[in-house]
Amino acid sequence: MAQHGPRMVVPIDVTKKPREQKLPLHNRWHPDIPPVAQVSVGEVFRVEMVDFSGGRITREYTAEDIKYADQSVVHYLSGPIRVVDEEGIAAKPGDLLAVEICNLGPLPGDEWGFTAIFDRENGGGFLTDHFPCATKAIWYFEGIYAYSPHIPGVRFPGITHPGIIGTAPSMELLNIWNKRERELEENGLNSLRLCEVLHSRPLANLPSTKGCLLGQIPEGTNEWEKIANEAARTIPGRENGGNCDIKNLSRGSKIYLPVFVEGANFSTGDMHFSQGDGEVSFCGAIEMSGFLELKCEIIRGGMKEYLTPMGPTPLHVNPIFEIGPVEPRFSEWLVFEGISVDESGRQHYLDASVAYKRAVLNAIDYLSKFGYSKEQVYLLLSCCPCEGRISGIVDAPNAVATLAIPTAIFDQDIRPKANKLPIGPRLVRNPDIPRCTYDGNLPITQNPGASGI
Amino acid sequence: MAQHGPRMVVPIDVTKKPREQKLPLHNRWHPDIPPVAQVSVGEVFRVEMVDFSGGRITREYTAEDIKYADQSVVHYLSGPIRVVDEEGIAAKPGDLLAVEICNLGPLPGDEWGFTAIFDRENGGGFLTDHFPCATKAIWYFEGIYAYSPHIPGVRFPGITHPGIIGTAPSMELLNIWNKRERELEENGLNSLRLCEVLHSRPLANLPSTKGCLLGQIPEGTNEWEKIANEAARTIPGRENGGNCDIKNLSRGSKIYLPVFVEGANFSTGDMHFSQGDGEVSFCGAIEMSGFLELKCEIIRGGMKEYLTPMGPTPLHVNPIFEIGPVEPRFSEWLVFEGISVDESGRQHYLDASVAYKRAVLNAIDYLSKFGYSKEQVYLLLSCCPCEGRISGIVDAPNAVATLAIPTAIFDQDIRPKANKLPIGPRLVRNPDIPRCTYDGNLPITQNPGASGI
Amino acid sequence: MAQHGPRMVVPIDVTKKPREQKLPLHNRWHPDIPPVAQVSVGEVFRVEMVDFSGGRITREYTAEDIKYADQSVVHYLSGPIRVVDEEGIAAKPGDLLAVEICNLGPLPGDEWGFTAIFDRENGGGFLTDHFPCATKAIWYFEGIYAYSPHIPGVRFPGITHPGIIGTAPSMELLNIWNKRERELEENGLNSLRLCEVLHSRPLANLPSTKGCLLGQIPEGTNEWEKIANEAARTIPGRENGGNCDIKNLSRGSKIYLPVFVEGANFSTGDMHFSQGDGEVSFCGAIEMSGFLELKCEIIRGGMKEYLTPMGPTPLHVNPIFEIGPVEPRFSEWLVFEGISVDESGRQHYLDASVAYKRAVLNAIDYLSKFGYSKEQVYLLLSCCPCEGRISGIVDAPNAVATLAIPTAIFDQDIRPKANKLPIGPRLVRNPDIPRCTYDGNLPITQNPGASGI
Amino acid sequence: MAQHGPRMVVPIDVTKKPREQKLPLHNRWHPDIPPVAQVSVGEVFRVEMVDFSGGRITREYTAEDIKYADQSVVHYLSGPIRVVDEEGIAAKPGDLLAVEICNLGPLPGDEWGFTAIFDRENGGGFLTDHFPCATKAIWYFEGIYAYSPHIPGVRFPGITHPGIIGTAPSMELLNIWNKRERELEENGLNSLRLCEVLHSRPLANLPSTKGCLLGQIPEGTNEWEKIANEAARTIPGRENGGNCDIKNLSRGSKIYLPVFVEGANFSTGDMHFSQGDGEVSFCGAIEMSGFLELKCEIIRGGMKEYLTPMGPTPLHVNPIFEIGPVEPRFSEWLVFEGISVDESGRQHYLDASVAYKRAVLNAIDYLSKFGYSKEQVYLLLSCCPCEGRISGIVDAPNAVATLAIPTAIFDQDIRPKANKLPIGPRLVRNPDIPRCTYDGNLPITQNPGASGI
Repeated sequence: MAQHGPRMVVPIDVTKKPREQKLPLHNRWHPDIPPVAQVSVGEVFRVEMVDFSGGRITREYTAEDIKYADQSVVHYLSGPIRVVDEEGIAAKPGDLLAVEICNLGPLPGDEWGFTAIFDRENGGGFLTDHFPCATKAIWYFEGIYAYSPHIPGVRFPGITHPGIIGTAPSMELLNIWNKRERELEENGLNSLRLCEVLHSRPLANLPSTKGCLLGQIPEGTNEWEKIANEAARTIPGRENGGNCDIKNLSRGSKIYLPVFVEGANFSTGDMHFSQGDGEVSFCGAIEMSGFLELKCEIIRGGMKEYLTPMGPTPLHVNPIFEIGPVEPRFSEWLVFEGISVDESGRQHYLDASVAYKRAVLNAIDYLSKFGYSKEQVYLLLSCCPCEGRISGIVDAPNAVATLAIPTAIFDQDIRPKANKLPIGPRLVRNPDIPRCTYDGNLPITQNPGASGI
Repeated sequence: MAQHGPRMVVPIDVTKKPREQKLPLHNRWHPDIPPVAQVSVGEVFRVEMVDFSGGRITREYTAEDIKYADQSVVHYLSGPIRVVDEEGIAAKPGDLLAVEICNLGPLPGDEWGFTAIFDRENGGGFLTDHFPCATKAIWYFEGIYAYSPHIPGVRFPGITHPGIIGTAPSMELLNIWNKRERELEENGLNSLRLCEVLHSRPLANLPSTKGCLLGQIPEGTNEWEKIANEAARTIPGRENGGNCDIKNLSRGSKIYLPVFVEGANFSTGDMHFSQGDGEVSFCGAIEMSGFLELKCEIIRGGMKEYLTPMGPTPLHVNPIFEIGPVEPRFSEWLVFEGISVDESGRQHYLDASVAYKRAVLNAIDYLSKFGYSKEQVYLLLSCCPCEGRISGIVDAPNAVATLAIPTAIFDQDIRPKANKLPIGPRLVRNPDIPRCTYDGNLPITQNPGASGI
Repeated sequence: MAQHGPRMVVPIDVTKKPREQKLPLHNRWHPDIPPVAQVSVGEVFRVEMVDFSGGRITREYTAEDIKYADQSVVHYLSGPIRVVDEEGIAAKPGDLLAVEICNLGPLPGDEWGFTAIFDRENGGGFLTDHFPCATKAIWYFEGIYAYSPHIPGVRFPGITHPGIIGTAPSMELLNIWNKRERELEENGLNSLRLCEVLHSRPLANLPSTKGCLLGQIPEGTNEWEKIANEAARTIPGRENGGNCDIKNLSRGSKIYLPVFVEGANFSTGDMHFSQGDGEVSFCGAIEMSGFLELKCEIIRGGMKEYLTPMGPTPLHVNPIFEIGPVEPRFSEWLVFEGISVDESGRQHYLDASVAYKRAVLNAIDYLSKFGYSKEQVYLLLSCCPCEGRISGIVDAPNAVATLAIPTAIFDQDIRPKANKLPIGPRLVRNPDIPRCTYDGNLPITQNPGASGI
Repeated sequence: MAQHGPRMVVPIDVTKKPREQKLPLHNRWHPDIPPVAQVSVGEVFRVEMVDFSGGRITREYTAEDIKYADQSVVHYLSGPIRVVDEEGIAAKPGDLLAVEICNLGPLPGDEWGFTAIFDRENGGGFLTDHFPCATKAIWYFEGIYAYSPHIPGVRFPGITHPGIIGTAPSMELLNIWNKRERELEENGLNSLRLCEVLHSRPLANLPSTKGCLLGQIPEGTNEWEKIANEAARTIPGRENGGNCDIKNLSRGSKIYLPVFVEGANFSTGDMHFSQGDGEVSFCGAIEMSGFLELKCEIIRGGMKEYLTPMGPTPLHVNPIFEIGPVEPRFSEWLVFEGISVDESGRQHYLDASVAYKRAVLNAIDYLSKFGYSKEQVYLLLSCCPCEGRISGIVDAPNAVATLAIPTAIFDQDIRPKANKLPIGPRLVRNPDIPRCTYDGNLPITQNPGASGI
């Protein structure tokens, strides 16, 4: 009798490098990267993935690999995967590709992950002006739970999900991306619309041949050269889905992706054992290798039926998602608020990014009173299942954003208390987190009100 | 035997105007507005509230009252309420005031509310460039449920909460507010950091005597004149809490407010039967009169112990919240995504406000395919229990924001479907929503890709 | 403008006795008890209720009123209420009456309740052979929360619900009830199928004129005499619904009741602020006066369409229920198990009642290790939102039943711990619960293994 | 670098028979069955399991294997596993063994299961008098979801759990079991306390050499003979845990097992992809092979500290459980009720088993109106995540039990409706379920009121 269970379509051997995998990986978006596998609607199939860095970031207790991480190679993706219907007819531009996540998890034998802060001059993160040093925490998995020797006193069930899932862009869509991101890059400092401290981070990551991996396209050929110069980087989420980092896309979720090229040619990667809303430290989820078990459906003509372009062309659309029914159940949340006034006291106008930054900063300082260093909390809020909300976006001039933290992840009661009765272990926490020095010259945000680290 | 239940401290008669209530209301923040009542820690007490407009917006099926709403009088608040401990000693600056919401709801006999879009030239809203006309929907309550004759086919349980709860600012804090908001107002167009289309909305609402109500301070006196010229408007949330619009602050929630003046002198109002994250249409919750049953605790010295200033002074803090255990339980959500590319196709840099705007626009166009007008959906997303999340805030240049809608609020299945089987009533919806014309000259955002209303 | 909100149809004045209420109450089921009010489908209306004892059990800190409680008068119900459709045509036998609970709660000004153990010779309870003495705990409500001075260290949100809601039986159905219950009463000890220790409790409560209240039927008349001798007691749940004690029938729930007489003539009462599954101490919920806001719908011919008789006549049916969406959210549960072996070690055959008894006994002894007396825990498990499950009913000879307790209701961590770190307040609990002596001669179950109280 | 993830301690090859596995299995409880593996506290390890029948029940679409199933061989268990502390000292009698389920699932490549009704004369089930024929449904797994070609129109996420986990009994405890079960077997028909229709089922399954498998004890030796004649069957749950069938013991759950022999020697098996409370059809879960990833802790002296004996010896205890945080989230439930009146109309006294039987019968007849055969629904309610509750156990003479079904598992709206609008697919369901004839002579319960199958 036939074997049951998902058909393996993209296997990964984590002892090998990205370029040595049986089916080649890629780290760019381009319509000409050829599919490595084909699946039919209705069948359940398995896609395995390396971690986003392709194994370059290791399980060693050092942050050196983070400090000097090569940002040009991220993210290594599995695919593209071509999708056909029951009669073998490929998905077509204008269709909607529904991808159901039947199951997912870490790769057996590789049950660990990492969360890191990039150096301010090599990637940074949401709070890079406060935390310029490269640091790293290693997490180990015990089934649904993760714990870290670097952040003691917390253990939590992950809402595991792929950071990236997206369809291949058409050439037309790719050109739109490159044009708009190039304009940002070129006009940047004159047109910027966010708290200046973030400006030291890369504005956009334009196509570059450096670090480029294009699946079956042989490196060094003319074709490779051409594609590499056009292919979009995978860092931002865009019309094709991509790096959405929606932390609840776990088991049972469904993703409705627009189809731009024949076959849909979707790719996936950047597996997260867990992530907080915003993924604030940038390398901020619990990054790992992993597998997905997927099932596809094609909704013919679905782009027109269900998606409305929001921009100058019919390609300016976004995917739709359904959240799955299986998630950790938390009942108690402590909520931190931020308004759009920055650390210097300056008033911004309905800026949700500034408000969220302040909410995260408030949470970090609060939790640091319970025995943690601020960098430990920054890492923790990047990867634990905390929720970032836009609470008010109309009450000029202040946007209000909130960060809600499930209290059950701590082994002590972190709520404010009028009496001083000890609730839970009050261990001397170990603030020893692998970290590097920051050797750059960019100014650090000094919050006059905050206490030291 | 003594009667049980909460002690009434602020009664409201909704047949009377704000100025005629037994205990005077106020609509500004200022340390010199005298308390109207005193409560002790541990006792449960009842505070009643008019709706934010003080009854000026009526149950009539017309939007005229919205179009010409007087923005100078919002929000009518109940209080201030002075808090003392068991020994009668008042809360002191530096303490933390914990306020538990034991119960809340609409006022008996007044079980209705409204949701509205302000005219673009009189308040506007998050999408005012798309929806410049004043409109209004009336909601009726059936216990936990709300339904509207103007938005057929939806009925949902509310997460009822006060939009505003805050402590009185000290003079020092008030001066900080007025200074920073004045700077925004004065330098506005040169320093703005958000999608220009929002700039036609008021930047800040500086102190003004027009419409000012100051509790027991007699109007027209010198004292009144002085305070009215200093007192902060109640529209934005700030360090004292205030208009946070955190939609989950319902039964069982706890709010930890910083204390800036002797007695804490907290005020509350702007009751919402239900609100969506962001309250996007501005007059966007289901606005109503209502009551709160509260219980206070004083955490002596709690500001220093639990709050870290995030700015140039020790006053630059934010409240902390705990979410209560009783909320509607939804299991299925449809999620819309936005990235920080605006409707013209222009690339913004990690701007969560732009990303959320696009997510809301995507949701509106999607739901309008199910028999609704876009304005009906705009109102619905302002007030139904939908969740707005900051999913990714680090993947330059795109912030990713999401809007998640519980599918159970609809009487039809709104999920994308490959087959065309009818799921649920497919009534011809009635698009007749009370609305006015827009008579101004500001440009309307025309999304080239969107279909007509 | 017309007033909004539910129309009052049955008002209650808790300072008056049951016989003095404006609309007369009743405490029996009989088709000839005339309706006191009429409602139309679609309208929201308010029904108020006395507590089940009609005020005979008081807020005094004594158990005397429990020990000598008059079991002949329970339960005082509000109604019957006649239901008609939009055209004024009454519900008819064979229809299904859908009753939605839009809202409910304690009566304003009467926010307290009681939980009690009846004396073994006056009602008893599930564990009456272990706990023969009358005791009582008083609970006070703070909005959604209840706490008791008699059971310190617990505070929980209630899942408030009516213990009783049911339609009037037809004469035919009433005769079926009386016949089968009389047979049990007469053949009792020879036919019993449950652990003998329960047999000292009343087997059935047959019709009796003692304590009988029949609404508008004047006491002492021939009609009254006749009805009183036929009318069923309200204690057991039956085909008409009645005393179902389904603890989750809270806000937003819907009850589909079979209609046996013209107009449906439904009654309701026995309001519970909170109850545990099984209501084990019998007077076991937090009993209180209260109100319901209801909305009715008539499903014409619904009995035939949706209910299947399970017995010799078409009247042998049971109601159907839908649970509402608003309940307290608990995330952590400690679960106690029982199997169908009784305290003497004797093996019973797939007896879920014996298994559940053992699960409850296990839970009581466990929790008594945390500073409580066993009677405090017995009362607590009767009224807190704990879940009683039939886990296995097929693994002969043992049925397996479980009792799950939400850990969040305690102010200490009640989970087993390998280390002895104190988690939460470890107060010396006050075991002082109002109690009487047991003066009877029935044997007490002595569990050889259990420690003393 | 060392491999991560759980250490494999009991591997299974599903292509081999139980007697051919690398580590021998067993299907009896006895202290002398030697452990097959040893684990230390704190380590995560993996135990694999055959399905309860050891592969005798196949994936073929026939019920012949069910009709003639050999009941003497169930359940094949993996283990015993000996547990030692960090210093290598074994768990001791009197300790509590805490077992955390870190992860679990079907065996890769074997993602299918079955649910069956045993023939009335070969095992039966809770409703065997209504459904005497052997039937079977095959389920296939798509990650978290299961669907069956034999029960169309349903698909649901499983709450996967081991049906059996228990420690080895001491000889003293084993003797207690054998004595009490033998007494039941011998006195059976005179002492029975449940609806007679269940009496045709086996009363108890006493030790027997037939079908006996004892791990490493060589079959046919004197030792084997002795143990086989003493060893308890695994069907009922008992003091050591065992076949508890608590359907929520899924990922993240913790089981506190009493230790009766040196090393604890716990065994596990009978993996369920999903089960309804009660597992009503007996072979009623979705039975499958599977794996557990476990972590142990020893609470020294924990039996005395946390468990209270409930019977004549200190061994009369039951395990305690904590439910894990990751379960499917359902928001809408349809609830069926039963009271302790049987199908003939006879009144039973507070019998929760009879009440639950009626609740299940009510649910079966109701759902059969939506296109299903009654046997399809009986199988479905055995294995879907439905909840069986003891709602009232004190309202003499009627116990009230309820069965709550999550409505989201159906592709149509199964709620009662006043209007007849179609909600969801109304496919002609395929009633073709593999079934055998019933060839016995026992009477079938004919519910006079029910419609035909």
